[in-house]
Amino acid sequence: MKIGIDMMGGDFAPKEAVRGVKQFLDSASPETLLVLIGDQARVAPLIQAEGIDPSRYQLVHAPEVIDMHEHPTKALKGKPHSSINIGFQLLAREDIHAFISAGNTGAMMVGAMYSIKAIEGVQRPTISTVLPRENGSTGLLLDVGINSDCKPENLLQFAILGSLYAHHILNIATPRVALLNIGEEESKGNLLVQAAYPLLRDCSKIHFTGNIEGRDIFSEKADVIVCDGFTGNVVLKMAESIYDIASSRKINDAYMNRFNFENYGGTPVLGVAEPVIIGHGISQAPAFKSMIAVAELIVQRRLLDKIRENFLA
Amino acid sequence: MKIGIDMMGGDFAPKEAVRGVKQFLDSASPETLLVLIGDQARVAPLIQAEGIDPSRYQLVHAPEVIDMHEHPTKALKGKPHSSINIGFQLLAREDIHAFISAGNTGAMMVGAMYSIKAIEGVQRPTISTVLPRENGSTGLLLDVGINSDCKPENLLQFAILGSLYAHHILNIATPRVALLNIGEEESKGNLLVQAAYPLLRDCSKIHFTGNIEGRDIFSEKADVIVCDGFTGNVVLKMAESIYDIASSRKINDAYMNRFNFENYGGTPVLGVAEPVIIGHGISQAPAFKSMIAVAELIVQRRLLDKIRENFLA
Repeated sequence: MKIGIDMMGGDFAPKEAVRGVKQFLDSASPETLLVLIGDQARVAPLIQAEGIDPSRYQLVHAPEVIDMHEHPTKALKGKPHSSINIGFQLLAREDIHAFISAGNTGAMMVGAMYSIKAIEGVQRPTISTVLPRENGSTGLLLDVGINSDCKPENLLQFAILGSLYAHHILNIATPRVALLNIGEEESKGNLLVQAAYPLLRDCSKIHFTGNIEGRDIFSEKADVIVCDGFTGNVVLKMAESIYDIASSRKINDAYMNRFNFENYGGTPVLGVAEPVIIGHGISQAPAFKSMIAVAELIVQRRLLDKIRENFLA
Repeated sequence: MKIGIDMMGGDFAPKEAVRGVKQFLDSASPETLLVLIGDQARVAPLIQAEGIDPSRYQLVHAPEVIDMHEHPTKALKGKPHSSINIGFQLLAREDIHAFISAGNTGAMMVGAMYSIKAIEGVQRPTISTVLPRENGSTGLLLDVGINSDCKPENLLQFAILGSLYAHHILNIATPRVALLNIGEEESKGNLLVQAAYPLLRDCSKIHFTGNIEGRDIFSEKADVIVCDGFTGNVVLKMAESIYDIASSRKINDAYMNRFNFENYGGTPVLGVAEPVIIGHGISQAPAFKSMIAVAELIVQRRLLDKIRENFLA
């Protein structure tokens, strides 16, 4: 298996990307080869300095870098030799089996949608976040920002995608799927969730347990929580701010520390035809390590084949 | 000034309502008379036990009680002698100048809308929550749940209502108004906030400072944050859950303790023609005291006249 990594993406690239690669390889099985995509002159010396075993990686030179604040489509067009562009080319050709970047999120999304495309039947690919829970487990919330206006059918598809991810990657036998709402009764909510409710209830591919309120996002009442990307993005960023508040107030609590979303690495783009993982711009070595491990798991467990099977007409 | 209080509303009524009345009167100016509406047989002994000065209150007998889980419109119709119905009758006749209840929220909303009605020009009355901020001040978020589907014009009106409340009641000289969004740029967000942005930007009645993200809800970047009631309700309930998590984990932090929304009493229904305050079902004495104090301030500062002036065609 070959996993491609954009070494130039993120605020601390390439140094933290290289350190993350080293950390991953130190504990990984030898079958996985990492394809490191970036500016050779900047990346190679760091790889040597970390003493990474040359049999475990390939370095692919990418002379251009898409900056964090560039316009996604313009940058992808204007910088064909950027690490993100080259990564998607390798992925499209199946020279790599997954692609990871902590770089420009918009460019990653555009690349995923246009170089790789959605799996047949998936209307809108989605991104998610893991949710820390007090018992040590994690739930999943989706969409968290790329689909800010949704149709009821989109929410149903997020539920199926999230459920498959929770089952195959988060190891939850029968993920309980809930709809984020402002009341528990079926009739509650805005027009979107009112229309989505019966679709979720009547879908045999998921285990739907009903509505869940904002107060239960971090509870153990559901494993997969579905919402439109506007609401989900507000929830995610608010959750991130809770960690910031806790740390600025020197609250040192094991559970609160799990609100440090940096630790979770990144989010897979669920619903596109090859594994793509987008990292947080502030990703450091542990986040890169974690993203590579998730990518490996997605390939090993053939998550995308499972998704394809579930979206066959 | 006469302030009416539903003594039968809330999980701990009438005992905590009576205790709240006592606490308020102990520190209040003698010009305010409290009109206590409830079951005489249950309320009168508690008032006597607390030793409340008979010159400071009137007791209005209400033999019926609308329970927390009754259907709002059915209950209002079926129980004409309930404390909520009698409260709204007194308010509509201006026998009282404000009405407070921690009872059935739906019945309070329906009562406010149909017994009292919206101020001319206000399309959708709204409810808000205060937001604790680390510097000790409070911001305001609205709508938090009664308008789950909004039009852009509704968000503009929430901004004006919230701004007037922040100015006159929260004592913020020039409240900075922000639009809750999933990015800071003007073009970000769902169709609703994209359309609302120029309305807010071009409105001379508010000081609009742009978009704000979920991570900044508790920051000092804005004083009034505007959103649809679906998003706002999710945010409010999630914020409430943060306090629950912190207290279950025995985190004792002065700022985290301010996430105990119980302390804030209740929310005024902004945009209806008389002051109406809806309390949390779990309201205890300090919440009742705080709601009475807010109602007094709303009347003293003539908030509703200010709102009327701003909504004149």
